[in-house]
Amino acid sequence: MTKNITTIQVIICCIFLCFSTMAQEHPSLILTKAGVQNIRAELGNVPLFDASLEKLKQEVDAEIALGIDTPVPQDYSGGYTHERHKRNMVVMQQAGVLYQILDDAKYAKYVKDMLMQYEAMYKTLPLHPKTRSYARGKLFWQCLNDSNWLVYVSQAYDCIYDYLDKAERKKLEKNLFRPFADHISVDSPQFYQRVHNHSTWGNAAVGMIGLVMNDKELIDRALYGIKGVSLDKTAKDDDGGFLNKDGKAGFLANIEEPFSPDGYYNEGPYYQRYAMYPFLIFAEGLHNVKPELKIFEYKDGVLLKSIDALLNLSDADGDFFPLNDGQKGMSYYNNALVTAVDISYYFGNQDPGLLSIAAKQNKVLLDDTGLAVALGVKNGKAEPFEKKSINLSDGPEGKQGGVGILRSDGLELVFKYASQGSSHGHYDKLSYSYYENGDEVLQDYGLARFVNIEQKGGGNYLKENKTWAKQTIAHNTLVQNEQSHYQGKYDIGSKYHPNLHLFDSSQENIQIVSASETNAYPGTKMHRTMAIIKQDGFEKPFMLDILKVTSDSTNQYDLPFYFMGQVVKTNVDYKIPNTLEPLGERNGYQHLWLEGTGMTNNENTKFSWLDNGRFYTMTSATLPNDELKLVRIGANDPEFNLRREAGVILRRKDTNNTLFVSTIESHGSYSPVSELAINSNSNIKELKVVVDTAAYTAIEITAINDETSLFIIANTNNSKEAEHKLKINDKNYEWSGSYHFNK
Amino acid sequence: MTKNITTIQVIICCIFLCFSTMAQEHPSLILTKAGVQNIRAELGNVPLFDASLEKLKQEVDAEIALGIDTPVPQDYSGGYTHERHKRNMVVMQQAGVLYQILDDAKYAKYVKDMLMQYEAMYKTLPLHPKTRSYARGKLFWQCLNDSNWLVYVSQAYDCIYDYLDKAERKKLEKNLFRPFADHISVDSPQFYQRVHNHSTWGNAAVGMIGLVMNDKELIDRALYGIKGVSLDKTAKDDDGGFLNKDGKAGFLANIEEPFSPDGYYNEGPYYQRYAMYPFLIFAEGLHNVKPELKIFEYKDGVLLKSIDALLNLSDADGDFFPLNDGQKGMSYYNNALVTAVDISYYFGNQDPGLLSIAAKQNKVLLDDTGLAVALGVKNGKAEPFEKKSINLSDGPEGKQGGVGILRSDGLELVFKYASQGSSHGHYDKLSYSYYENGDEVLQDYGLARFVNIEQKGGGNYLKENKTWAKQTIAHNTLVQNEQSHYQGKYDIGSKYHPNLHLFDSSQENIQIVSASETNAYPGTKMHRTMAIIKQDGFEKPFMLDILKVTSDSTNQYDLPFYFMGQVVKTNVDYKIPNTLEPLGERNGYQHLWLEGTGMTNNENTKFSWLDNGRFYTMTSATLPNDELKLVRIGANDPEFNLRREAGVILRRKDTNNTLFVSTIESHGSYSPVSELAINSNSNIKELKVVVDTAAYTAIEITAINDETSLFIIANTNNSKEAEHKLKINDKNYEWSGSYHFNK
Repeated sequence: MTKNITTIQVIICCIFLCFSTMAQEHPSLILTKAGVQNIRAELGNVPLFDASLEKLKQEVDAEIALGIDTPVPQDYSGGYTHERHKRNMVVMQQAGVLYQILDDAKYAKYVKDMLMQYEAMYKTLPLHPKTRSYARGKLFWQCLNDSNWLVYVSQAYDCIYDYLDKAERKKLEKNLFRPFADHISVDSPQFYQRVHNHSTWGNAAVGMIGLVMNDKELIDRALYGIKGVSLDKTAKDDDGGFLNKDGKAGFLANIEEPFSPDGYYNEGPYYQRYAMYPFLIFAEGLHNVKPELKIFEYKDGVLLKSIDALLNLSDADGDFFPLNDGQKGMSYYNNALVTAVDISYYFGNQDPGLLSIAAKQNKVLLDDTGLAVALGVKNGKAEPFEKKSINLSDGPEGKQGGVGILRSDGLELVFKYASQGSSHGHYDKLSYSYYENGDEVLQDYGLARFVNIEQKGGGNYLKENKTWAKQTIAHNTLVQNEQSHYQGKYDIGSKYHPNLHLFDSSQENIQIVSASETNAYPGTKMHRTMAIIKQDGFEKPFMLDILKVTSDSTNQYDLPFYFMGQVVKTNVDYKIPNTLEPLGERNGYQHLWLEGTGMTNNENTKFSWLDNGRFYTMTSATLPNDELKLVRIGANDPEFNLRREAGVILRRKDTNNTLFVSTIESHGSYSPVSELAINSNSNIKELKVVVDTAAYTAIEITAINDETSLFIIANTNNSKEAEHKLKINDKNYEWSGSYHFNK
Repeated sequence: MTKNITTIQVIICCIFLCFSTMAQEHPSLILTKAGVQNIRAELGNVPLFDASLEKLKQEVDAEIALGIDTPVPQDYSGGYTHERHKRNMVVMQQAGVLYQILDDAKYAKYVKDMLMQYEAMYKTLPLHPKTRSYARGKLFWQCLNDSNWLVYVSQAYDCIYDYLDKAERKKLEKNLFRPFADHISVDSPQFYQRVHNHSTWGNAAVGMIGLVMNDKELIDRALYGIKGVSLDKTAKDDDGGFLNKDGKAGFLANIEEPFSPDGYYNEGPYYQRYAMYPFLIFAEGLHNVKPELKIFEYKDGVLLKSIDALLNLSDADGDFFPLNDGQKGMSYYNNALVTAVDISYYFGNQDPGLLSIAAKQNKVLLDDTGLAVALGVKNGKAEPFEKKSINLSDGPEGKQGGVGILRSDGLELVFKYASQGSSHGHYDKLSYSYYENGDEVLQDYGLARFVNIEQKGGGNYLKENKTWAKQTIAHNTLVQNEQSHYQGKYDIGSKYHPNLHLFDSSQENIQIVSASETNAYPGTKMHRTMAIIKQDGFEKPFMLDILKVTSDSTNQYDLPFYFMGQVVKTNVDYKIPNTLEPLGERNGYQHLWLEGTGMTNNENTKFSWLDNGRFYTMTSATLPNDELKLVRIGANDPEFNLRREAGVILRRKDTNNTLFVSTIESHGSYSPVSELAINSNSNIKELKVVVDTAAYTAIEITAINDETSLFIIANTNNSKEAEHKLKINDKNYEWSGSYHFNK
């Protein structure tokens, strides 16, 4: 009996061992065996899914018809070999999916054949011949792209795993996948062992192939970083970012660090979009293969929160706000956002707002998540994704500033009081951009780069990204003495961040955000309050901008407005020069042509422009001898890398403490078809500073019809409960909370 | 019996007389009594008509709710009184229509009340206080606007004619309409007695009120001009145009003169659009009241032909090509084109292509023509309006040059070899603009004016229209010695025009137009040939531009390319200056900043740019020491009236006879969403002049794949039948006709 039991125990033990090493079925990473059954059962019934499948099939069939090419690596991005390998990785992933869903072996064979070609090449492949990267790849010039490749190819391998025989799998794993994973990790720790979007791709790549290969060492390396390796904490990468200041590494650290509890990604939405795919696709894989990790609950569910944050960081058209190094035009139509929306819907709370975005994307993932979304759309569950005013904290614990977005009647104000944003950050504390119906009214320049356009510096960051785009003067914020914030130094910028004073979107007639910054210019405090106000007698809400500067030195202050469109009128008597000279010599000023200059001679300076068939007017409570400078981007730009767009700068000289108060109105319309100009003049008669003390700043706004409103901000006490009393022109005002607004 | 017969005869005679003076029923001008019955019978059954009616009703009801205001005239366009009277005229016309269709007296009352207010004001109204016009109106600053008013109000009056009693009609006619018609005609002959779009409005105004009042004198004055009045034939108007060089006047002369037999209107499409409404609405009135005039058959049916020509003078989006003084953005969505399309459909051949435009306009006239169109759309008869390559002759007899439009695969080349184009003409012989899918690739600047935007020079022509927009250097054509064509003088320009050499759109692989000009620069002949060519191995057709210059003097030649978008790359080693200076001092050169300059050092100069997600490359067969100048519009522009757009100029110095040969390729794509740059390089390896004699010019185009094509043009003999033989590099070419193209 004892013996029998023992035998049984041994057998059970064997079976158990057997299961723990052998039991993993395939596909299991993104597609699952059960999921594929569901999908097959629904084929032909779910239009969005069917259309996505059909489109994919056509694309992949066209590629199969072209034949397989795995050229010897040679080019930077934009060049043939780069683009071919990039395309190959995507097509393999897609063909893998088609094999599973359509059960057609031609797709599996295509993946297999291509993988075998890669295997044959890779085993003797040296480092990529291009030397520009701090971490060279083998298929590509940088490990980053190699990691992209492996993230996609892991999925392809998972899909055809069972199609291959054991010897084939062994060959691929030994000669291709394992050395590939090692090259981007243990052989490239300066790339892998970091908290950075590059490393996230690396972690996901190693982890996903690890999950498919059921290789615990790789999975652990993915989740926790390379065991026992720590980097020089003062070393920097190509972009000037620290390689690994805190010594943290691995996928979990990469979730922990860059995301705030609100889901804001510290590099901004453009890079979040880029990073999102590996975060989410690896998370989906972990969810499927290692459900015990509860990855979607990690850090209070921050991965799913981050998708909501990202969608909120887009304008009315779905274009991401180009904070930091962001290329304009990137939007939620990007494939990474198809992944994000589908995953968020499926693993989150089935938010019907996401379905309306999915319907616009007109595409779903070909997995359980995409099927759920397509079914939701089919069943008429979609509702508009309503973007409201939102405050997103920055920093791992949400204590490093943030981004406040005010929204009202099609107007969107993006106020940036975030931390440096890693190596892709700009020196633009308390800057903002302003949108109407998805069009830029006052722009954030974004980056100076033409991503993947080889003729433009190989598609990489251009010199002007550093000399112009990152500099403070390139943004709608205050510049002191023609110097950039934090001296334009990453080391200094990384130490500090602005602090939120208040954010309130609870009132119908005023949406407001306020923050201050004391380290951008030592000895100077900038406190900026921005509000979108609805006032009777105005066609649309207007924006109020109060920038209070306190300094222990005498300085020159420049406040730019990068308006988009054609100058209509100003009440400043300016002169234009006969020849154009740059506005300055450094810190971005060398890139601005001075097109006109004048001295303000009214208590209110007015400047209006026309764009996208709408009129806009800036009204500013200026002081005598303030200067108005009309500028245009493009000086000292030998390669014509910069867009020749305009700005107007308010300059105030020889001042320590001062106050800039401005409004931006959107008003009226112009149609070149009807040729009607409607409501083309400002509705503000007077903008007046009625109080400005250390404790309070009060602004009175008088409309053309003589109706006035009063806005008061408590500059030091931001308690929501505090009671305030203030006498202005013999009238007593009493209120509780940090600001007062009374029509 | 005799007596009886006589009595009967007398009675018949009386009845006849009675009918001939009294029988005119109302409405009869645009709406007719029978037409209104038809419309009423169809109400609720014709969606496009019903929707147009409902929209109009909402608009008019809103205006009625606002109450009537007929302010004392005071402002220029853009100002309140101007815009109010303009709105009033439209609303009266609309309310008149609603009265007829809906049979609701409130609309008639509204028109009557407003007319009575006008009557009360008009009878003592002095000239408009603003003095800028050569022909001041009373309600408006210029007779032109007064005429607009009467064209609309005549229709309103016709609609409520029967609603008014005889005394009311008499009061209006005596105190308002008749003196109004007299003011714009007999009191303003310098405005009325001309061949000019202004006069067309005047003629139509006088004629339409004449038709409603059944006033033969006014009708004759409309058709034939003011009896016995002739103007100083050397006098000029505000725009520098001759008042009346030929002494012709009246509506018929205004049809005769400006329209070519092909229906091209000599001022270009922007002004044709403006003129179209009075031409067509008065013609419709004449057709209804005086069918014996057969107005739509006049001059071989030119009015209807002109609508087809106008529609063909629009890009893929329906925006008119901004030839001469044209404001960009004006399109077939303008109300005048709703009129044109509906009238063309109804009085023409019921072209189903027009229905597709009407469907896009989403609006029809509320009369017989609109009903017919709406019924056509309802009954599924709409077909795409297919725009093909077309050659439109200019001049009353079609012998004063023209405009050739080449179209191929979404590309549109607009080649202008037209006559001066009246006072709105530009000095731009043999110039062109180039479009892709409705986007400008190489632009025509258009006018320098912000129509109706009061802040910009009262909405009128700006100084820069003359100093920049009209000058030759503002266009994509040749400038000799920095002088404009015809010395930039209207008197000279009006004497001459280029001559067509050939136009051929019959071949699938080559669309071609060629013309020459000998008077723009005395002693110099310019012969330009432009073609859009389809060649195997090219992704899309490319444009070939051959400009042959023969001169009896030594000159400097500038050939500009006003490309739209961002510079991608050039093979010219250029330098940028430290400060920007204007390119020259006069003739438009003073408005160009010189942003970069270099000497060509290759046999082919390449210049590429990116716009609207597409790459473009200009390849030019340049000579050693040709200069490439990068320029930007906007120098000496104190009011920021000009758009800061770019150009690149090829400059060749110290030459008499010379040849400029260039190609423009559209290739590839860039998406900021996918960040894929596809086919971003030119496909042309070499562009080579292989023959250039007085008789022949031959160009060889070699693609990257080494396939070549050869284009030969016979420079002097443009007979379609001529037989040619030419030996090039020991190979004999034989062909018939004026050009040869062989892959």
